[in-house]
Amino acid sequence: MSERFSFTLLANDGAARRGRLSTPHGLVETPAFMPVGTQATVKAMLPEHVRETGADVVLGNVYHLMLRPGAERVDRLGGLHRFMNWPHTILTDSGGFQVMSLAALRKLDADGVTFKSHIDGSMHRLTPERSIEIQGLLGSDIQMQLDECVRLPASRDEIARGMRLSLDWAERSRTAFEGFGGPEAGRALFGIVQGGDDLALREESATALSAMPFEGYSIGGLAVGEPQQVMFDVTAATTAFLPTEKPRYLMGVGTPDDLVGSVARGVDMFDCVMPTRAGRHGVAYTRFGKLNLKNARHAEQIAPLDPEGPTEISRSYSRAYLHHLIRAGEMLGATLLTWNNIAYYQALMRRLRTAIEEGRFDDEAAVIREGWVRGDVVSS
Amino acid sequence: MSERFSFTLLANDGAARRGRLSTPHGLVETPAFMPVGTQATVKAMLPEHVRETGADVVLGNVYHLMLRPGAERVDRLGGLHRFMNWPHTILTDSGGFQVMSLAALRKLDADGVTFKSHIDGSMHRLTPERSIEIQGLLGSDIQMQLDECVRLPASRDEIARGMRLSLDWAERSRTAFEGFGGPEAGRALFGIVQGGDDLALREESATALSAMPFEGYSIGGLAVGEPQQVMFDVTAATTAFLPTEKPRYLMGVGTPDDLVGSVARGVDMFDCVMPTRAGRHGVAYTRFGKLNLKNARHAEQIAPLDPEGPTEISRSYSRAYLHHLIRAGEMLGATLLTWNNIAYYQALMRRLRTAIEEGRFDDEAAVIREGWVRGDVVSS
Repeated sequence: MSERFSFTLLANDGAARRGRLSTPHGLVETPAFMPVGTQATVKAMLPEHVRETGADVVLGNVYHLMLRPGAERVDRLGGLHRFMNWPHTILTDSGGFQVMSLAALRKLDADGVTFKSHIDGSMHRLTPERSIEIQGLLGSDIQMQLDECVRLPASRDEIARGMRLSLDWAERSRTAFEGFGGPEAGRALFGIVQGGDDLALREESATALSAMPFEGYSIGGLAVGEPQQVMFDVTAATTAFLPTEKPRYLMGVGTPDDLVGSVARGVDMFDCVMPTRAGRHGVAYTRFGKLNLKNARHAEQIAPLDPEGPTEISRSYSRAYLHHLIRAGEMLGATLLTWNNIAYYQALMRRLRTAIEEGRFDDEAAVIREGWVRGDVVSS
Repeated sequence: MSERFSFTLLANDGAARRGRLSTPHGLVETPAFMPVGTQATVKAMLPEHVRETGADVVLGNVYHLMLRPGAERVDRLGGLHRFMNWPHTILTDSGGFQVMSLAALRKLDADGVTFKSHIDGSMHRLTPERSIEIQGLLGSDIQMQLDECVRLPASRDEIARGMRLSLDWAERSRTAFEGFGGPEAGRALFGIVQGGDDLALREESATALSAMPFEGYSIGGLAVGEPQQVMFDVTAATTAFLPTEKPRYLMGVGTPDDLVGSVARGVDMFDCVMPTRAGRHGVAYTRFGKLNLKNARHAEQIAPLDPEGPTEISRSYSRAYLHHLIRAGEMLGATLLTWNNIAYYQALMRRLRTAIEEGRFDDEAAVIREGWVRGDVVSS
């Protein structure tokens, strides 16, 4: 529990990287997918089952947790790990992104952002310093600087303004992180690269952040609706200017195909609500692509999601039963599909890690994509 | 899997009975509490976790299952046990009670009941024969005759009419059960005693049913809002006229206190939505009574539900976390509290079974009641 944050690069295969994070709460094998635990729970899952899928780290959202149950309360209760019975690594975002997307009202100024809670209408303020303080109270192992993610489309000037404000907040966040004892606690703070889809601004942001003593770097402002190729191009152009000895985290990404393509471009860490949200809405991810279990064609299919799936759940429940549960609005349907999806994402990352170690990443990626293209075995 | 239904009375302690059912899907230790799995799932629970709490049998609802996914479909998919991944004993009701309480429209005649689905407005008909056919298609181990549960308050004539109609349907149900091969499959059919709160009508019903070759007897028409003492009095007056060598099932009961009082009056089997429904609404059952986790007093309680609780769930999650999950509307809150509640009910039944075996039922019941009266250890 007293290990200091570190990152070891174990192997390269083209731009793809196989690494290992060490944090005060354990090891994280990279490339890593981090399930999202917004409100101190990965929705519909028991924490030990999340762990069983192979997840080394989950993400907590500062915006939600500061509003309910509150960072000071979590601190009094022994920190987020203990609160949510997750003794492994926790990464937190800064809260900034969700303030802009969820809060009822918000007003950004050079010092921070003031907003109204979507839960009870109460007013709150988030500054770079307060975000770091909250993340420290939660006990987060891997923390994020507060940044501004400018909504696209936007003018180059507007994107540049947001990127430079984020650089200023990066410095303030680092100072606060050191002031709150983050390094002594063995924790990490990541700077966040911004710059929209402008490659020159991305270079400026990545270069400036690389000169600051962050333990890792996040790529923000993507996965906001842009075409996949734009995301790939910006990611490749960004990782090129980041130090090779530090981990890179592509925020909010993505589909299985996004993950494979981004690992190929040098990304080490990912988070996304997709596998959990899709599970609650009746969608399963498998080696053969996505299945919508609401669809009537599954109503009498005795076959499981995947007879060679990554968890007992994927192998032992019929599609007909999952169809029934989803149609009937039963919680068990959400639990089983979420479980399958997280397990599928973790199995995918294991395959990629092994392939990088063995120097056959491109071949493995091609085999994986073939499975998706071939489509569902039962329906074909 | 080919065992025929049987009931063995292992011990008596006053009117309380310790027994064992054998069914085609395993043994059921009695007195037994059966969690309710309305739509082919005990809400918010994985079937293996229901089993881990000690449940030997779950209940399925014919009304819900005939509408969705449909009995013929379940049959084509290999039966309800396989469909819901519950390889242990299943008991089904006849559908009659929920037709009267849930269907949008219903019309009762001497031959059966016609009703409109609350799901899609389609019209359906349930007769004694069709109910047995459905229960056979589901593969239910312990089946119920179709009966009429007259809503109280009602005149004595009305209660008598419903009771005598139920006797007629009992005969028709038995004939259908034999026609559909129930006895050869080793399954059981229970007759249902009716008669409202009129002890003479209850005697008439119990005596008439006892002369028919049922494998067990249910006590219906209680747990519909009457005072506990009325329920106890009717139960005692009914069990007095039932054969001692057959199991007795008090339908829809009840609170932990109802269970203790009814076991004392000779009941062997119970079902109730209370522990599962209460769990989804933030209420936990413990040795020290009920706890409403929504209550603000739990917001910073690091104590678990019960440090000596019947499952790891009851011991390892703080009340503060459960409070947070329930307030935030997170599914995990419903899962954890449902789990605790089912585990508490099963632990209670184990205590009662052991006490009857050891001839100290009254003493044990007194100790159990003392715990409830003492109240919550943390708050006091």
